[in-house]
Amino acid sequence: MALARIARANLRRSEGAFGNYAPEMNVLSEGRAYTSKFSSTSPYYHVNSKAGDNLSYNPSIKEQNLMNFSMRGISGTPYYQHPSASTERVVEESDSELEHDEPRYAGLEATKPGEKPRVVVLGTGWAACRFLKGLDTRIYDVVCISPRNHMVFTPLLASTCVGTLEFRSVAEPVSRIQNALSNGPSSYFFLASCTSIDTNKHEVYCEAVNNGGLPREPYQFKVAYDKLVIAAGSEPLTFGIKGVKEHAFFLREVNHAQEIRKRLLLNLMLSENPGISEEEKKRLLHCVVIGGGPTGVEFSGELSDFIMGDVHKRYTHVKDYIRVTLIEANEILSSFDVSLRKYAIRHLTKSGVHLMKGVVKEVHPKRVVLSDETEVPYGLLVWSTGVGPSEFVKTLNLPKSPGGRIGVDEWLRVPSVEDVFALGDCAGFLEQTERPVLPALAQVAEREGKFLVELFNKMGKQNGGKAFSAKSIPLGDPFVYTHLGSMASVGGYKALVDLRQSKDSKGVSLAGFVSWLVWRSAYLTRVLSWRNRFYVAVNWATTLVFGRDNSKI
Amino acid sequence: MALARIARANLRRSEGAFGNYAPEMNVLSEGRAYTSKFSSTSPYYHVNSKAGDNLSYNPSIKEQNLMNFSMRGISGTPYYQHPSASTERVVEESDSELEHDEPRYAGLEATKPGEKPRVVVLGTGWAACRFLKGLDTRIYDVVCISPRNHMVFTPLLASTCVGTLEFRSVAEPVSRIQNALSNGPSSYFFLASCTSIDTNKHEVYCEAVNNGGLPREPYQFKVAYDKLVIAAGSEPLTFGIKGVKEHAFFLREVNHAQEIRKRLLLNLMLSENPGISEEEKKRLLHCVVIGGGPTGVEFSGELSDFIMGDVHKRYTHVKDYIRVTLIEANEILSSFDVSLRKYAIRHLTKSGVHLMKGVVKEVHPKRVVLSDETEVPYGLLVWSTGVGPSEFVKTLNLPKSPGGRIGVDEWLRVPSVEDVFALGDCAGFLEQTERPVLPALAQVAEREGKFLVELFNKMGKQNGGKAFSAKSIPLGDPFVYTHLGSMASVGGYKALVDLRQSKDSKGVSLAGFVSWLVWRSAYLTRVLSWRNRFYVAVNWATTLVFGRDNSKI
Repeated sequence: MALARIARANLRRSEGAFGNYAPEMNVLSEGRAYTSKFSSTSPYYHVNSKAGDNLSYNPSIKEQNLMNFSMRGISGTPYYQHPSASTERVVEESDSELEHDEPRYAGLEATKPGEKPRVVVLGTGWAACRFLKGLDTRIYDVVCISPRNHMVFTPLLASTCVGTLEFRSVAEPVSRIQNALSNGPSSYFFLASCTSIDTNKHEVYCEAVNNGGLPREPYQFKVAYDKLVIAAGSEPLTFGIKGVKEHAFFLREVNHAQEIRKRLLLNLMLSENPGISEEEKKRLLHCVVIGGGPTGVEFSGELSDFIMGDVHKRYTHVKDYIRVTLIEANEILSSFDVSLRKYAIRHLTKSGVHLMKGVVKEVHPKRVVLSDETEVPYGLLVWSTGVGPSEFVKTLNLPKSPGGRIGVDEWLRVPSVEDVFALGDCAGFLEQTERPVLPALAQVAEREGKFLVELFNKMGKQNGGKAFSAKSIPLGDPFVYTHLGSMASVGGYKALVDLRQSKDSKGVSLAGFVSWLVWRSAYLTRVLSWRNRFYVAVNWATTLVFGRDNSKI
Repeated sequence: MALARIARANLRRSEGAFGNYAPEMNVLSEGRAYTSKFSSTSPYYHVNSKAGDNLSYNPSIKEQNLMNFSMRGISGTPYYQHPSASTERVVEESDSELEHDEPRYAGLEATKPGEKPRVVVLGTGWAACRFLKGLDTRIYDVVCISPRNHMVFTPLLASTCVGTLEFRSVAEPVSRIQNALSNGPSSYFFLASCTSIDTNKHEVYCEAVNNGGLPREPYQFKVAYDKLVIAAGSEPLTFGIKGVKEHAFFLREVNHAQEIRKRLLLNLMLSENPGISEEEKKRLLHCVVIGGGPTGVEFSGELSDFIMGDVHKRYTHVKDYIRVTLIEANEILSSFDVSLRKYAIRHLTKSGVHLMKGVVKEVHPKRVVLSDETEVPYGLLVWSTGVGPSEFVKTLNLPKSPGGRIGVDEWLRVPSVEDVFALGDCAGFLEQTERPVLPALAQVAEREGKFLVELFNKMGKQNGGKAFSAKSIPLGDPFVYTHLGSMASVGGYKALVDLRQSKDSKGVSLAGFVSWLVWRSAYLTRVLSWRNRFYVAVNWATTLVFGRDNSKI
């Protein structure tokens, strides 16, 4: 009996707040590591969900103050080890954990009757920001929680690495997207990471971004919600390959682009130093991109533009040493039409990008080793092989879609719990909806944000904004995604536009200068604010007239 | 006798490459620290200079590879400890140190007859860049050595901290200032710090900026020169006050401004966190500026503009907690006319800047302690109490001006050695010239750069460019500095313009909106490139229309 209780307690814990660390997270505890994978089809899950026991909130949170999840792939956030949890203690707490009702955190308590309902939004990506933008703040108060205070216009991020665009032109402060966050009397933006959720109590638990200046560190607080919108994004996939996190750059955040730019300019300058061997120069100036999706291709294209337009003019001593290699295991731009793919391969090759087929086995500080033992020395390594569920999503005790995202129904609700919605890269349709999990695209996230905020405004108008109050409200039509097409620039004023609705259907596809004009104008009109629209246009014009800026700042 | 030799050897060493560290540099060696201060009036110095023995080059450089000077106040450059030097070894080497002739470094060897003379410029500040801009590259090859690859338009740096201007608008890549650096066949820019100079051999010794990717670290090399131009700048004065370097921000480089901006936005956001006490909010949002010179006043003015224009609109939850305090030991803007000073005090006070008289005794992570034991809690601390000679300048075995700068004559030559020139903040007139040391101003540095480059072009045309070849060439008129006036903005579209030639002379002084227009247009025309002129204008216009950007990136 005692053994059974221990087993049950451990099972619950392993599905709770810290059960689903990826193996590479190196979870240390006294004598054992919690690495059991959560499975949405496990019998335990169904029992648990029927009983309404969706507890992602960890009862012994005080002892686990050091837990910190690296959300959204922002580098620099340390992975803390959580303190040891002895089996003994788990047994003691296992039966009483639901009875703990005293507040453990300061924070925003549940809204009172008569107050506006509070929507809590986790994240500041495409989905979250489209949702925030459209929210009717006459009906709702809104609290946005994210470790960054701005949205990144990701499709143009690659252009900032080489100075075609400035960093600020592709970042939009969230308080400009939704004014209430800065001046609503009960609406807030909190610069923090959400660490866990208690769907029964309708509370999220957060940890403020660390700066060494807060009264206690880590600084934790809670926020009670009437409705919760999880749009916390995804993380770059590294497939557990050794050395990727340590040595490669991702390209998902503005600070990633800043670091890539600094490294690129630094290597260009350092390779001019007297006494550097030919071989070393070649290595320092070898830019290797892993992953032939749109991001990898666009970054390679921007690099080759930079090399032909700026390096040849401004770094004449080393211009003959710089090369770009794009390594892809399968085909580049696999989601695009075959004619576009061929065009891209032709154009990239002509611009000097070396295309290479290969699978990365290991990453070392100065070289990549492929599975066939080929060694590729590099000076700059950019990793863009797609995204997967974040550590935060993995730890949530919520149903999962195929691929491990938060499982949602056709209205983007998490069906087993009330008042919780998920969208964007972190969400996917549950298997029982018989719909495919949508790709992790800005387009998908934005459309979902638009759908959900309209649903919220409708619910709110029918007094369904408060917690547990939307059950009887008709939801209307479910979310349907129609793909408008894909675009990717390949450098040299050339782009691809694929207007087919899916991979196998027929439709228009375009490649070349006209596509590039379509690409530029489409993005320019999608940039959220007039301020940044103006800056992007100004950046493009000045790059054309004066070339790219190459101060390493 | 042996004792005398030991004493002599130590004396020479202590005046050589590593004798003049400031006490706070924490020089460790076996059992003793070399901290004797260099004095230009020491009898040893005169003997040494007459003998032509101006050796700043350290003979046992191989063992001292770890030495690294933090030039130009760029934070992040670590202070290495140099390895122990035993008295024993010094005695052994003391008599043979001049006989070491084998090359110890790879690098650029002396130019051959028939080749263009090579000018080596240390630094990329106002003086260096004005010099570089004007250099006749048909006559000279040029090598510029600096740990940063751009010039900073320092008078506008304060505006970038709050987002009125963008960082890139005030930085100018040095390769755009002097094209030959990027495309001249024998001209180079090296991203490196100069660590020592051998004025006899006509060589400088350098260490490349560290990035973990060079074949060996530290990566050292040498560059032989025909003419050497030292314009390596100064360092912020901290007066040895405990905690300044650890906790305060300086405002001299673009990365300083970036860090200040990040901290300011971070504190604004963190103070919104639930559960922060009133007192903590006040502390987090207390911006303290130490030093009431033009930089301190302009930064305070920009801060109060930011608070009134942006914080009140975009951070309404915490707007009543933010305050600015400017602490100065004497009078603010002491070099300005008394009526302007009064105007500045009135205007700053009206804009909410609290002016405080006080001398800082200690700096702690969250509070400043004044000499009268007053404690001033802060969330952001900016230190701008003027500049002094850098560690690099202190270690040079060259004559010094009053105040410890490199001593120069009326033609900016270092008189005791041949082909060495110094200008800008790191140079000052020798006592025997009977001229005052000029203030560390952009205006002075720029004028000196212009004077010197014209002198160089003249010498070059008369075949005086090569090493040891300019002795017989008439130098023409000496450098004369005429002060054009001083300007400082105080925020709120107000500025001060003081057109008096010196502190005690009479002349026009203006304060208010017209001055502000003069201030803006004067700076706009001084910005070096059309690209940045355009960007500064665009930044100003967008700030006016859209307000300041507040993404923390």
